[in-house]
Amino acid sequence: VTPADLRDRVDKALREFLADAMPTLPRIADELAPLAAATEAFVLDAGKRLRPAFCYWGHRATGAPDGTAIVRAAASLELLQACALVHDDVIDGSDTRRGAPAVHRRFAALHRSEGWYGDPERFGQAAAILLGDLALIWADAMLTGSGFAAESLQRAMPVWEAMRVEVMCGQYLDVVEQARGGGSVERALRVARYKSAKYTIERPLHLGVSLGPVTDDDATRLSAAFSGYGLPLGEAFQLRDDVLGVYGDPAVTGKPAGDDLREGKRTVLVAFAAEAATPAQSEALRRHLGDPQLDDDGVTVLRDVIASTGALARVEQLIATRVDEALAALDAEPMDEAARAALRDLAAATSQRSG
Amino acid sequence: VTPADLRDRVDKALREFLADAMPTLPRIADELAPLAAATEAFVLDAGKRLRPAFCYWGHRATGAPDGTAIVRAAASLELLQACALVHDDVIDGSDTRRGAPAVHRRFAALHRSEGWYGDPERFGQAAAILLGDLALIWADAMLTGSGFAAESLQRAMPVWEAMRVEVMCGQYLDVVEQARGGGSVERALRVARYKSAKYTIERPLHLGVSLGPVTDDDATRLSAAFSGYGLPLGEAFQLRDDVLGVYGDPAVTGKPAGDDLREGKRTVLVAFAAEAATPAQSEALRRHLGDPQLDDDGVTVLRDVIASTGALARVEQLIATRVDEALAALDAEPMDEAARAALRDLAAATSQRSG
Repeated sequence: VTPADLRDRVDKALREFLADAMPTLPRIADELAPLAAATEAFVLDAGKRLRPAFCYWGHRATGAPDGTAIVRAAASLELLQACALVHDDVIDGSDTRRGAPAVHRRFAALHRSEGWYGDPERFGQAAAILLGDLALIWADAMLTGSGFAAESLQRAMPVWEAMRVEVMCGQYLDVVEQARGGGSVERALRVARYKSAKYTIERPLHLGVSLGPVTDDDATRLSAAFSGYGLPLGEAFQLRDDVLGVYGDPAVTGKPAGDDLREGKRTVLVAFAAEAATPAQSEALRRHLGDPQLDDDGVTVLRDVIASTGALARVEQLIATRVDEALAALDAEPMDEAARAALRDLAAATSQRSG
Repeated sequence: VTPADLRDRVDKALREFLADAMPTLPRIADELAPLAAATEAFVLDAGKRLRPAFCYWGHRATGAPDGTAIVRAAASLELLQACALVHDDVIDGSDTRRGAPAVHRRFAALHRSEGWYGDPERFGQAAAILLGDLALIWADAMLTGSGFAAESLQRAMPVWEAMRVEVMCGQYLDVVEQARGGGSVERALRVARYKSAKYTIERPLHLGVSLGPVTDDDATRLSAAFSGYGLPLGEAFQLRDDVLGVYGDPAVTGKPAGDDLREGKRTVLVAFAAEAATPAQSEALRRHLGDPQLDDDGVTVLRDVIASTGALARVEQLIATRVDEALAALDAEPMDEAARAALRDLAAATSQRSG
């Protein structure tokens, strides 16, 4: 199973699930058709299918054979991710996602084009909150309907619960951190841990293991190894995200240049810069970071500050260290060798990506 | 099992679940303690436990014995309801719920008292969106951890999915209906059907049946009978809610007098009034309905219009007709007699309540 094959099969599983689930909405009422269309567009227009890949290979690592059920179960993580992103965009007031209007903007536009009463923005938010709720429900439905036996699913439920609770808690910690104005490397790392490391890598692996044909002891042992691999790699993933949010190429990331700077995101990268800044650099951070009107010159000023404080180099060093830790944990544990090789490739893809 | 006993047992099941689930949050990070506290306060401070009662008695109607698992499964509906209400309050911008500040207001106050950066209202909304997501996840965890065998739970999953999808769709239809400015009795009834009838009564009964020790054929037959009972009764429930929103006693409903009028809710009651209004009455509706500053005199004017157009009497007549239909469907089907008697009492409690 090559990465491209797996991505295609995850896409196919999502298309099939949505082809079945979405028509229930217009059957309830015509007015629900835009919710179905927006969900379908959002979920199918996505990219890397990283979480499903980790879930799939976590499952294969147990010695389980390839199959349709695990691809479907893994694909359900994209629906959970849809909930997290759609709600996140409402929370952050983000206008775009993957280069297209955010869901709440799309529904605000619908409100305007229909000439409805009230505030289009409030309508857009309401629709996006409800669409996110639906995606969370469908994630559940796709997992429980994936084709696994009832007992396997029941074994997976504690992991499924923990994963979903953790991502929402990570989002809340992120919001609190922004509200506090950041400044703590330790707290920024904790946000990265819950919002990304556990949710993107560790828990998808655990979910795959929990659905596998293994004894409880073997599942515990393999899950512990995957924590050793997933947590540092997930931190590296988030740190790469932070770097791309400041230095990434808009053509590849799908986000305007310096978008994280304009939003004032309190990342580890920014926390390192704040820690090492001279008074003049601190002043530049205070003035420009989180300025919604920040122009290209301002972006350049902040990029220079972050690089010249040494923060960028520290983050790149941290990424390299974390990836090494992850690979060492991966190599230390007996598992299916095809899964190990795929997870080694995923470590590189996760930490070295450019978008 | 008396109604008061059942309510106490549902409360106890919720307390036990929360005592287990909430401490996971401060273990992740101290900053999450307010999310846990607000969830606990919201869920435990609730009132009628109607949805659990329907789920419980739907289960008992199959001939299933009393037990802890069904009480827990039934109680999980209160966590789903917490999600629906908390998100609804964000969507409507409601300041209060059950006489206390809405969750988003509570977190806006936390933001202010901490002296954090940014807009307290936006922070409050973010926290409430995430708390609602968590409640939806916990509902699932409480149901799947209720103690039923894996096969029973798997049989319940399609009902559980349908119920959750329908309530979110009902909310969306409600938002669209407000945005359109209402005016259609048919569309207002459809909102009532999805937002209340199916979600509050029909689907809880179906969920209880699906967890029962019955053949698929018997489950189908009993579920059909419960649709015949639940849909008209649910409509009556929502119509009673509409009447209470206009004429209810604030001391009993926990909401300010005429709150629905101030919000401009497009209910069946209002749609009947609009249909039968004279030009002068139409003008009064147009002027006062949805006026956030509406004072007691304005409330009195609207109450008089709604009564004198005959809308109030029509709604009361419709409630009585629907309850009769529900009871006829209940009596036509063989089922456990204790369950039948309890469901007869619940029909009265649902349609005749004053708060």
